[in-house]
Amino acid sequence: MEKIVRVTVWNEFRHEKKSEAVRAIYPEGMHAVIAGHLNRQSGLRAAAATLDEPEHGLTEAVLAETDVLTWWGHTAHHLVADEIVERVHRRVLDGMGLVCLHSAHLSKIFRRVLGTSGALRWRDIGEKQRFWNLEPGHPITEGLGEYFELPAEEMYGERFDIPTPDKLVFISWYAGGDVFRSGCCWERGHGRIFYFQPGHELYPSFHDPNVLRVITNAVRWAAPRIIQTEKCRQAKEPLEEVPPKA
Amino acid sequence: MEKIVRVTVWNEFRHEKKSEAVRAIYPEGMHAVIAGHLNRQSGLRAAAATLDEPEHGLTEAVLAETDVLTWWGHTAHHLVADEIVERVHRRVLDGMGLVCLHSAHLSKIFRRVLGTSGALRWRDIGEKQRFWNLEPGHPITEGLGEYFELPAEEMYGERFDIPTPDKLVFISWYAGGDVFRSGCCWERGHGRIFYFQPGHELYPSFHDPNVLRVITNAVRWAAPRIIQTEKCRQAKEPLEEVPPKA
Amino acid sequence: MEKIVRVTVWNEFRHEKKSEAVRAIYPEGMHAVIAGHLNRQSGLRAAAATLDEPEHGLTEAVLAETDVLTWWGHTAHHLVADEIVERVHRRVLDGMGLVCLHSAHLSKIFRRVLGTSGALRWRDIGEKQRFWNLEPGHPITEGLGEYFELPAEEMYGERFDIPTPDKLVFISWYAGGDVFRSGCCWERGHGRIFYFQPGHELYPSFHDPNVLRVITNAVRWAAPRIIQTEKCRQAKEPLEEVPPKA
Amino acid sequence: MEKIVRVTVWNEFRHEKKSEAVRAIYPEGMHAVIAGHLNRQSGLRAAAATLDEPEHGLTEAVLAETDVLTWWGHTAHHLVADEIVERVHRRVLDGMGLVCLHSAHLSKIFRRVLGTSGALRWRDIGEKQRFWNLEPGHPITEGLGEYFELPAEEMYGERFDIPTPDKLVFISWYAGGDVFRSGCCWERGHGRIFYFQPGHELYPSFHDPNVLRVITNAVRWAAPRIIQTEKCRQAKEPLEEVPPKA
Repeated sequence: MEKIVRVTVWNEFRHEKKSEAVRAIYPEGMHAVIAGHLNRQSGLRAAAATLDEPEHGLTEAVLAETDVLTWWGHTAHHLVADEIVERVHRRVLDGMGLVCLHSAHLSKIFRRVLGTSGALRWRDIGEKQRFWNLEPGHPITEGLGEYFELPAEEMYGERFDIPTPDKLVFISWYAGGDVFRSGCCWERGHGRIFYFQPGHELYPSFHDPNVLRVITNAVRWAAPRIIQTEKCRQAKEPLEEVPPKA
Repeated sequence: MEKIVRVTVWNEFRHEKKSEAVRAIYPEGMHAVIAGHLNRQSGLRAAAATLDEPEHGLTEAVLAETDVLTWWGHTAHHLVADEIVERVHRRVLDGMGLVCLHSAHLSKIFRRVLGTSGALRWRDIGEKQRFWNLEPGHPITEGLGEYFELPAEEMYGERFDIPTPDKLVFISWYAGGDVFRSGCCWERGHGRIFYFQPGHELYPSFHDPNVLRVITNAVRWAAPRIIQTEKCRQAKEPLEEVPPKA
Repeated sequence: MEKIVRVTVWNEFRHEKKSEAVRAIYPEGMHAVIAGHLNRQSGLRAAAATLDEPEHGLTEAVLAETDVLTWWGHTAHHLVADEIVERVHRRVLDGMGLVCLHSAHLSKIFRRVLGTSGALRWRDIGEKQRFWNLEPGHPITEGLGEYFELPAEEMYGERFDIPTPDKLVFISWYAGGDVFRSGCCWERGHGRIFYFQPGHELYPSFHDPNVLRVITNAVRWAAPRIIQTEKCRQAKEPLEEVPPKA
Repeated sequence: MEKIVRVTVWNEFRHEKKSEAVRAIYPEGMHAVIAGHLNRQSGLRAAAATLDEPEHGLTEAVLAETDVLTWWGHTAHHLVADEIVERVHRRVLDGMGLVCLHSAHLSKIFRRVLGTSGALRWRDIGEKQRFWNLEPGHPITEGLGEYFELPAEEMYGERFDIPTPDKLVFISWYAGGDVFRSGCCWERGHGRIFYFQPGHELYPSFHDPNVLRVITNAVRWAAPRIIQTEKCRQAKEPLEEVPPKA
């Protein structure tokens, strides 16, 4: 029997409340669209959590039953409590997958788990973005072709301040003349991390079938292969006989 | 004219004060031995900084004039102020080199910059350790042969919870039956990081010529190639003409 | 329904014919033991191929139906026809998995696919070898603990002339004082490659349950995720309007 | 005293002989332009070698005195003798640097040293290419800004069939809608390899100051740090006492 991957879709959920334009695209929040899509896929079960819930919806109990966490945040990164970031970080090292979307490049959790600033260049004029698929054999690109396009997205451009990805899955072309490493894989501890560029709140990217497919694939790829907490341990007895100290 | 590499040798400096046995090996502290050695090498200038100084000796002014920071801590990792860790972290991303020695694998700065727990297995029975040189062409192994040995060190064994090193320079063999990735290189932001295993306070490893040579080489390797702060920046005008939004 | 992984177990099959001692361990050849084991695992179907068969048993037809090829050779690397090596190489780039065992580190195919010499240090005195598991969450270590041991193997020691592995799964400790990267993963083209150290002809390593488990896991890990031939292709029409040449 | 880096600039040198258009750009061959430029830089000394010379100008004696080899070939890859490719390959593993330019992505030496096909998508309509600098602290980008442009080049587009670069230095944007990993670093054996995209024979890219600067920087970066031939060696006596075989 197939093992169910339990996903928690985290959303800052502020733009949708404040902006009519955003609400027109995501009436119940981006998380509702993403979680809804994941729940229609076989083998996945998704729930949502948002900033303004107690403990941002990420209690110990919730995380203990989360296999993969997706993260979207933008204006309120600083309002995410350090204690919760620490908790999520530990869970990633234990083996939980983490899928960081769009402006999550500046989230505390992204910066904490990778150790870099996540800085980049940006421009929001709604330009065309094309995602080139560098790894047609990678699980994250399953079902995609050589490339796919979004008619309008925010531009994120190089230099992107990240550790060299273990695997670079997408590079994006922008109409305005920029490029970006828009799909990046890492492993930290026992957990897998994927960063995926699209998702500005003013564009309907999370309704796009290719974007949803990538997120779905990424969730499956990032599902834990092991859950194990690493701690320093004394290995008191040597495995081989050691001569006594002089 | 050769550019001078300015090194700050940071030491927790607690064991030396509390323990007669440690003081016998490092009467003025480990930092004095390491900095003293570096100061005798051409092109290097080293100063020391310790935990109990104001701001741990790592003021903004000191860091601004530090090209490479070496770090030794053990019992007091938790006493290093988060604010100072954050400051050092930013300076590493800007391009400063960081050389983490021995028990620094659990220091806040090591964990912060790499994003993993640094957990490992350990045993202290003073067993023989042999460092195998995997990269004879790497600057960090310059002047070393195929391997070198320490007659007695604390054992640090796999699994070591670190991101896959960009370059693995040493693997250690221990008499008690363990192995360890004992010389590891990474890059984060514009900074270079080196982890080097030896240096338990009860063994005279920082008096060993091979250990000192590796530290010297590592300091040279980690010297900044650029100092530049990365921040998110708006690239307002596209480089190419972009059709107006529909 | 589970997809069957079709394995071809390639063996030089010379030692077994010439040496009584080897024949005592592998009466029908190493390939018979390895393929026999794989055929008892769910989802795998293995056949053997050997040097002295026409085209070394690796016809275009055989390769076209091979998902993963395991390779053992030692004294007759130079007798493997370049044309067959080329054929296997192309199939690896197309997506076939390749598992190189023991002395295959000097095989033409290993050197061709990785581009390095595969040189190493060696000693055959039948010393104890301990495999440390660096990646407990990796599919190749599934079912193994922190380490496993072989009572007697040939020593292969660093420096091993290989490209930095994408993932280093095992490091070995030897009684004689050496270490070795004994389980290494790479990707080339669409294919996955695993190198695994044990398997000297004079020791019964391919009867060892842990060794067999690693080979089984490696075969599953290396199974193709895509089979696709990459060729240079003209992308005649640009995707965007390009101004005519001046 | 500064150590001189001895460069051999290898050119197929066919287009220049056959085509008036190419000869107009490179009257004495591309190699003359590249070597001429390198010879005007401090610490470099360059000579040329071409396909139609005996042994393609790459005798054992020439290679023994070459620190870095640059390579340009296009229509005659198949005419480069395998024996010479083998010789160059061995020299790279020994520590010689290799800088592969433009259509060298299909050269025998590039494919041999990396183990992949080098396949890519291409289009020659003379479109604008912009090189984004991902590594402002890397020696290869020294003196360059955030990006530089060529007004017209041949497009090389993803997917480029290469092993994941150790360091990705440039990503290119093309007016026609494509992207490309246009500056890639690897290490194989003791040698360093750099691939750099520009240099179609019909465009004056090797007269461009930024292109020349990158080639100059790459030559300096790829200069040998060690020259050492790796061979399998018997380490007959163990470093530790090993119990006799049972």
